[in-house]
Amino acid sequence: MNSKQISIDEVKASIRDVVDFPKEGIVFKDITTAIKDPAVLVYCVDELYEYYKDKGITKVIGIESRGFILGSVLAYRLNAGFVPVRKPGKLPAETIQESYDLEYGTDTIEIHKDALNKEDVVLIHDDLLATGGTVCAATSLVDKFGVKKSYVNFMVELDFLKGRERIEDKYDVYSLLRF
Amino acid sequence: MNSKQISIDEVKASIRDVVDFPKEGIVFKDITTAIKDPAVLVYCVDELYEYYKDKGITKVIGIESRGFILGSVLAYRLNAGFVPVRKPGKLPAETIQESYDLEYGTDTIEIHKDALNKEDVVLIHDDLLATGGTVCAATSLVDKFGVKKSYVNFMVELDFLKGRERIEDKYDVYSLLRF
Repeated sequence: MNSKQISIDEVKASIRDVVDFPKEGIVFKDITTAIKDPAVLVYCVDELYEYYKDKGITKVIGIESRGFILGSVLAYRLNAGFVPVRKPGKLPAETIQESYDLEYGTDTIEIHKDALNKEDVVLIHDDLLATGGTVCAATSLVDKFGVKKSYVNFMVELDFLKGRERIEDKYDVYSLLRF
Repeated sequence: MNSKQISIDEVKASIRDVVDFPKEGIVFKDITTAIKDPAVLVYCVDELYEYYKDKGITKVIGIESRGFILGSVLAYRLNAGFVPVRKPGKLPAETIQESYDLEYGTDTIEIHKDALNKEDVVLIHDDLLATGGTVCAATSLVDKFGVKKSYVNFMVELDFLKGRERIEDKYDVYSLLRF
């Protein structure tokens, strides 16, 4: 599908740094400037497809909300189902929940009870790996289903925050773009 | 990509009715039971692709959050960029906003100021057309960019709420599944 060939450096450069968002001192990696370019979108999806195509993925989990974007495209490309993990109160049927610590307080995510089964090979996708709190909660949720195997994937990983150290001993972690 | 062939009636049946969600008296159309089935996901995307493939779409807009799911897959398939429309405070850079009336009070959505340009042919996607308040706000946002043309698409349309009447005189409106 890709007519315009681009390099990974061009893909990295297409991500916009937004200073002091969502609060002072944080430099936010804004993927909207990347995915609005069809060549970048195709590059990201096709690279991730190559990495996961032979792993027998049956379900791709996207973490609300930015994880829905590439997560659903990956599900489509891998001929897998798509499953959303969401903030409390958004999923309409019976769910299981997992809470995790934030800098101040806690946050909670949930998944439908009928979303996965023991036969599933799961790819958990989010747009960004920072400190890893959200993805640890997501892997805990998925583990409760007793699935065959889980993979963890990010579009962007912030190496200096070392979120990878919290998950890489237990899961295959792959990030497309590392900063 | 589709190995298992299914019919549109099977696709419609894969959507779960959740009674009294998000509040009493509402029967919620839950698409999670549909999109977790790869055959349904592929059916929906490929049907929509067929409808839009010759329309010169350059950007697909997904309305937060469920509109991100099929919206991003459509962008990928159509070799278009993907642009999120979100609730206030979620997009990190400069935005333009549009408010719309709810049963009680108002709601607001926004889009990045650099998301679209005059050359764009836009496909606005959301998972569900009910009364049409959100999509009217989204079309107003898109119109402010002076784009060439806009199309409006839903996975599910609830005919009895007549949301279509608010947009069909101005836009090409296509829903995959009508109830």
